[in-house]
Amino acid sequence: MEFSLTTMGTASAHPIVNRYPSAHVLNIHGRLFLIDCGEGTQVQLCRCGFSFGKINEIFISHLHGDHVFGIFGLLSTMSLIGRSAPLYIYAPRDFSSILNFFLAHFGEGVKFTIEHKVLDCSAPEMIFESKSTEVYAFPLNHRISTFGFLFKEKEPKMNIFKDKVDGLTFGEMVRLKSGEDVIRDNGQILAFKDYTYIPYKSRSAAYCSDTAPFEALPQWIKGVDLLYHEATFASDRAEMAKATNHSTALQAATVAKLSGAGQLIIGHYSSRYPDLTVLLEEARTIFPNTFLAKEGMKFEVSLQQYNE
Amino acid sequence: MEFSLTTMGTASAHPIVNRYPSAHVLNIHGRLFLIDCGEGTQVQLCRCGFSFGKINEIFISHLHGDHVFGIFGLLSTMSLIGRSAPLYIYAPRDFSSILNFFLAHFGEGVKFTIEHKVLDCSAPEMIFESKSTEVYAFPLNHRISTFGFLFKEKEPKMNIFKDKVDGLTFGEMVRLKSGEDVIRDNGQILAFKDYTYIPYKSRSAAYCSDTAPFEALPQWIKGVDLLYHEATFASDRAEMAKATNHSTALQAATVAKLSGAGQLIIGHYSSRYPDLTVLLEEARTIFPNTFLAKEGMKFEVSLQQYNE
Repeated sequence: MEFSLTTMGTASAHPIVNRYPSAHVLNIHGRLFLIDCGEGTQVQLCRCGFSFGKINEIFISHLHGDHVFGIFGLLSTMSLIGRSAPLYIYAPRDFSSILNFFLAHFGEGVKFTIEHKVLDCSAPEMIFESKSTEVYAFPLNHRISTFGFLFKEKEPKMNIFKDKVDGLTFGEMVRLKSGEDVIRDNGQILAFKDYTYIPYKSRSAAYCSDTAPFEALPQWIKGVDLLYHEATFASDRAEMAKATNHSTALQAATVAKLSGAGQLIIGHYSSRYPDLTVLLEEARTIFPNTFLAKEGMKFEVSLQQYNE
Repeated sequence: MEFSLTTMGTASAHPIVNRYPSAHVLNIHGRLFLIDCGEGTQVQLCRCGFSFGKINEIFISHLHGDHVFGIFGLLSTMSLIGRSAPLYIYAPRDFSSILNFFLAHFGEGVKFTIEHKVLDCSAPEMIFESKSTEVYAFPLNHRISTFGFLFKEKEPKMNIFKDKVDGLTFGEMVRLKSGEDVIRDNGQILAFKDYTYIPYKSRSAAYCSDTAPFEALPQWIKGVDLLYHEATFASDRAEMAKATNHSTALQAATVAKLSGAGQLIIGHYSSRYPDLTVLLEEARTIFPNTFLAKEGMKFEVSLQQYNE
């Protein structure tokens, strides 16, 4: 029942040695969601041991090159290794031009469907749903149309308390687990709340890059367990952050605090910071549970089981 | 007076961990010629310590993604770091569409001229000339329009033998060094051949990827000092090489032998060969002075000075 974020690219627009452009994998129960696809993503996926075949959904936050230039190589290699399963790419409207360009010039031999799901919302909106997961997109505050993503594990099905199983029929158990009270022929009422419990807390992760701070954001990701938030600069370059619609580490930490996040992962570092300590220390003054994203690092959200 | 080839990407279409798509730097007297630009080239350039500012010419052999997908990120970063010098990209005709796509979607802020020099020849043709260097393009035998490149250091100017300098006027020296005989007023003839020598042998390097073997190639690169030739497969997959218009290591070595090359560097390895020994051993049966390209490896052609 894994729920983890692997950060594969922590650079901002100017990559440097061992710092790749944006690329992340969120693993929810073994299903891999690729978030942003900067140049070199396919090699980083190999390096982190992720199978291309387990990626069916790609989420592109915005169409700056450092978040999307890896899509060409990744699609080409998926084709080369014989992919047939459809691929869904959630991206801003103009991504269609990029996809069409790719297909026209490099798409010979692509045997799988690539469907562009257009991101277009002004508040959180569900864009994907599976048995176990919901994904919401919401607008960020960058220089071009940019979206953040909230991934939520669905509420698990209720379990029957072990010490109350005896004496229940199979049919009664099914109804109680679905949240229905049972009235027996003799008039006895079995309230589902007395018999059932939620086995574990559902988990969530949010991805916010690239963005300047804005008021609505903390509410939109309220209570998120793992927050990835860009921290391109430290406060010494707050003006530069403002001018380029980016965030400082302090601002990222403020979002984490206001949203009541469980942990904060910062990334998307400017190449001006070869040593990232300043970013980490700054964020921790506001939000102590902050960690630095690094290439190949996995951040897990552990399962919080409820007592029976 | 450096003359060296650095191989930065040795993978073929399917990159694997630590094997990047095609990218090479030929350094001639400190001027950097970038040859092919697969995904990840900009990071590989950083890793190898090459300054982007010293690259003014890029040579793209053909428009398969593994030879060109890195151009987007490289151009973006050149722009980001404030490049103003013109950039010349020697590439097949259709590269215009790629460049136009880039400029239309990601070109905002690009302040330097990017000139596409169209490759279009059926035999070797000089495409670039500077004080020290000539570059020739020639067609290869691949599935789409593909070109190889021959880089030649120009013949150095002649020197006067040290023991013959005394007694010559400055004007006489200039004329002798330019290959002109001098007739003095008293009728004495000074033959330039008696007074001058060529200080060193000019060096050359050829780049041949991707290609199936063809008859004319060895003649076109006759006597080359350093030959980079693709060796996507070993002979165990000769049929696959033939079907995809690639070469085996044995075929690459045959080209090296027939052309009288000084050394052979093979690369562009299929991911089917995690261990490259088979390729190296096979090539060396024909051409012992063969070496395996690896990421970040530099192959130098040393200066062969003539005795005074």
